[in-house]
Amino acid sequence: MKKEKEKATNSKLKIIPLGGLEQIGMNITAFEYEDSIIVVDCGLSFPEDDMYGIDLVIPDVTYLKENIDKVKGFFITHGHEDHIGAIPYVLREINVPIYATKLTMGIIDHKLEEHKMLSKVKRKVVKYGQHINLGCFRVEFIKTNHSIQDAAALAIYSPAGIVVHTGDFKVDYTPVFGDAIDLQRFGEIGKKGVLALMCDSTNAERPGFTMSEKTVGKAFDTIFSDHKNTRIIIATFASNVDRVQQIINTAYRYGRKVVIEGRSMVNIINTASELGYLTIPDNTLIDIEQLKNYPDEQTVLITTGSQGESMAALSRMASGMHKKITIKPNDTIVFSSNPIPGNEKAVSRVINELSMKGAEVIFQDVHVSGHACQEDIKLIYSLVHPKYAIPVHGEYKHLKAQAGIAQELGIPKENIFLLSSGDVLELDENSAAVTGHVTVGDVMVDGLGVGDVGNIVLRDRQRLAEEGIIIVVLTLESGSGRVIAGPDIVSRGFVYVRGAESLMDEAKAVLEDTVEYCMEKNITDWSKIKTEIKDSLGDFVWKETKRRPMIMPIIMEV
Amino acid sequence: MKKEKEKATNSKLKIIPLGGLEQIGMNITAFEYEDSIIVVDCGLSFPEDDMYGIDLVIPDVTYLKENIDKVKGFFITHGHEDHIGAIPYVLREINVPIYATKLTMGIIDHKLEEHKMLSKVKRKVVKYGQHINLGCFRVEFIKTNHSIQDAAALAIYSPAGIVVHTGDFKVDYTPVFGDAIDLQRFGEIGKKGVLALMCDSTNAERPGFTMSEKTVGKAFDTIFSDHKNTRIIIATFASNVDRVQQIINTAYRYGRKVVIEGRSMVNIINTASELGYLTIPDNTLIDIEQLKNYPDEQTVLITTGSQGESMAALSRMASGMHKKITIKPNDTIVFSSNPIPGNEKAVSRVINELSMKGAEVIFQDVHVSGHACQEDIKLIYSLVHPKYAIPVHGEYKHLKAQAGIAQELGIPKENIFLLSSGDVLELDENSAAVTGHVTVGDVMVDGLGVGDVGNIVLRDRQRLAEEGIIIVVLTLESGSGRVIAGPDIVSRGFVYVRGAESLMDEAKAVLEDTVEYCMEKNITDWSKIKTEIKDSLGDFVWKETKRRPMIMPIIMEV
Repeated sequence: MKKEKEKATNSKLKIIPLGGLEQIGMNITAFEYEDSIIVVDCGLSFPEDDMYGIDLVIPDVTYLKENIDKVKGFFITHGHEDHIGAIPYVLREINVPIYATKLTMGIIDHKLEEHKMLSKVKRKVVKYGQHINLGCFRVEFIKTNHSIQDAAALAIYSPAGIVVHTGDFKVDYTPVFGDAIDLQRFGEIGKKGVLALMCDSTNAERPGFTMSEKTVGKAFDTIFSDHKNTRIIIATFASNVDRVQQIINTAYRYGRKVVIEGRSMVNIINTASELGYLTIPDNTLIDIEQLKNYPDEQTVLITTGSQGESMAALSRMASGMHKKITIKPNDTIVFSSNPIPGNEKAVSRVINELSMKGAEVIFQDVHVSGHACQEDIKLIYSLVHPKYAIPVHGEYKHLKAQAGIAQELGIPKENIFLLSSGDVLELDENSAAVTGHVTVGDVMVDGLGVGDVGNIVLRDRQRLAEEGIIIVVLTLESGSGRVIAGPDIVSRGFVYVRGAESLMDEAKAVLEDTVEYCMEKNITDWSKIKTEIKDSLGDFVWKETKRRPMIMPIIMEV
Repeated sequence: MKKEKEKATNSKLKIIPLGGLEQIGMNITAFEYEDSIIVVDCGLSFPEDDMYGIDLVIPDVTYLKENIDKVKGFFITHGHEDHIGAIPYVLREINVPIYATKLTMGIIDHKLEEHKMLSKVKRKVVKYGQHINLGCFRVEFIKTNHSIQDAAALAIYSPAGIVVHTGDFKVDYTPVFGDAIDLQRFGEIGKKGVLALMCDSTNAERPGFTMSEKTVGKAFDTIFSDHKNTRIIIATFASNVDRVQQIINTAYRYGRKVVIEGRSMVNIINTASELGYLTIPDNTLIDIEQLKNYPDEQTVLITTGSQGESMAALSRMASGMHKKITIKPNDTIVFSSNPIPGNEKAVSRVINELSMKGAEVIFQDVHVSGHACQEDIKLIYSLVHPKYAIPVHGEYKHLKAQAGIAQELGIPKENIFLLSSGDVLELDENSAAVTGHVTVGDVMVDGLGVGDVGNIVLRDRQRLAEEGIIIVVLTLESGSGRVIAGPDIVSRGFVYVRGAESLMDEAKAVLEDTVEYCMEKNITDWSKIKTEIKDSLGDFVWKETKRRPMIMPIIMEV
């Protein structure tokens, strides 16, 4: 293996994933060499089911804050939320320059603007093939394909060797816009000698090759030709500009006007067409208000909501809550998407609702993945030919599936690293090992609050959600400690039926006994009184209902 | 079409699904003719994501209660929860006899025993081919196949004609236990002339045929022969006795001891082997405590948890919470199941946790469905040749898919009925139409409470779950209305960090202003004071945090 070292040294390169390995989303990885740190991606993830009330989750970047003097910049591989979504939060604390390709930066700019941070962050648009020197590192952007345009792989040149990070990618020989993935460059860098490959694992369990985005264009053609007499509504991912382009092209060929609906899609489409990533023939796009001026069979709606998200445009249409679009019998509705794991049931619900309104729903074979399957992954490994394999971007089972592929291709098991978030992998030509672990974790964002909802609050919310709350109020006389009002009892989320009144009356009697007992025993310590109340009322309620509502005694003194 | 009318009449047959059509589960259908009602199945469903704290959901049987004098009995098609689970609740109010095959009744008996109702309910075990006369109806049990043994279709003979209800079924020519589905009888009854077919729609979207349960036996054989040196743990549905039988057979052939783990599986397996539906070779089954006496490669564990249910045995093993089983690297773990829609993410989580512990996880091609696919459905339609088609058992999209099949087979569109729960379909040889709608709905069971958690409580629980609660307490002097204690403020599930103290201090200041304002304005009406508190504090909290916790003012008087 040839070596490209920039200076002789005994130091090793550290690779530290700061998120994104235990759960989908929150992709962020630090590369550290002596006094330099660069970071690849800065994504968010969406809350798990048990994160009640949380809007989104961002990575804990304590490690970067503790090493802020070393941090030189962020390199962003593409414009999806799980790679850029945490930028407005993280950059508030670690304000270093961001490097990304044009469309990716356009989307980041829009996001920073929404957070009123655009003027505060240094941004540099990078072209494919361009190299950025930062501290000990040099970073090259390499053209790839993905379900959003302008995706890049990164070749990270460090004194310890070259690391190739694929970002999210697929191999598309016939992309809708722009060039195919730059396989030659992967080969060329591979020939130089690559220390480690960090490759997308999303589809590592799927055999074969990922189909070209262009095949979806053919599927649209068939649908449009089979449904010449109905309105067509197509739901897809807001950020899949090539998909939208293909729908527009087909609509234009069939003489249909196009409406784009859903805030996030309108935003991305605006950015993409301003920057020249989308070509819309004149007089094709119309406003949603103009729909009524055209017969149904001359219109197409492209909409968000392909994942059954309850507030997205298509879901509102399905449930009859959309202000401007009413689903009609004979509408043709196309899901140009597959459900992301966890969304299956929500998608089914929307399909059922649309079917009940008489629409025909098409949801099979109108989508291709944006991620490489097993044979594509083998291609990249064969071109890059790394010494070490570090599968990234996936749940553990996906990383493990890629590890299996790497082994099949001759990489020794001990050179394959299935990292967890926070692991510090130290590596050079001679050896590689996990040598430590840094602080990582979920920072929950709820409304304006970043990180103020912690596990205690979540545990309370879960208890409240499942069992409700009973509040007991009591006023004591200052000095004597005599009860002068209450105990009064109020509940929320517990029971609410006629029968409950007698239950609450009995509960009040239990409380009166408890309070009397406290007075008799001269228990004046408020915390002891509260414990007595919690215990006696809790036991009573459990015996009667087999429920454990949160019980909250409040004592006032007059 | 030949007719088998039992008496001449102008009345029509009413078919009234009382649940089970909008959502999976809660199968229960009333058949009414003049003064007779019989009911097919009596199932429960599991709570939707937004039914916070609810344990299970049973059907609202107001219609049956209002017509209790007509109700003659319940006919149960098979022993799955979505067909029998509501029996202990519904039979408390409508105590009529239950008719079912032997294993189905064994499972019902166990359930009634748990609810201390066994002695109170009349039960009659029915054999295939047997006819039960009840009021105007005669009901015949017909042998079918399903993922639980002893499943039956019903031929319901009424004066208006014959209705065939398939129950849940598949066509298995080589079942593991007992006979194949009695296709001859379907044909014979079809030849007599069938008014309506109510056919299982679960797999109506899937082309082809459903494979025989026996094919899974071959898959086990391959797995056992490929993993001779490791422990094998197999998760499957608790009630799939044939699956368990095949695992036991394979284990026996490979000289392995078998442990059965998970309460629901142990229950069903006990019932099945007591009744002769399961054959266990001597010295094969061992207790979980004995596991340590055998080397790993001589043991098999059969366990619940194939759906990733958080409290099931496999999930506890995966998360390291199981008291008796610790997952080891090199364990071979088999998911003999497919995720039910909605469980995909939970199943993935368990697979990831098991993989992280070093186990090999096999989850593909070790399962077959218990429901008929498109070609099987066509077979039943062709044998039964009904005048009317009433697809049952499925989400709307599944019912609609079966409607498409029925149309393909020549049933006119106007003779196909996609019913909603509560619809009253009146039919006879001459015509069929939905003529009314009866009360139906979800009755939620939470702990001991049946129906005491309604929509208001659920809405409160959702608010509490997502935003938490702020409680404001205030003591007023009786007569003067002067504030003599408070306002005090307590929160749960809202925020809980150091910064929150100042937020709460400011909130308290806002409250003091509000209370002062009320005093100045001589507002003494408690409900007005409460409204002022809610408004001012709500506005403040929203401005500061963009959250809307439940605000609950409590006023006491001394």
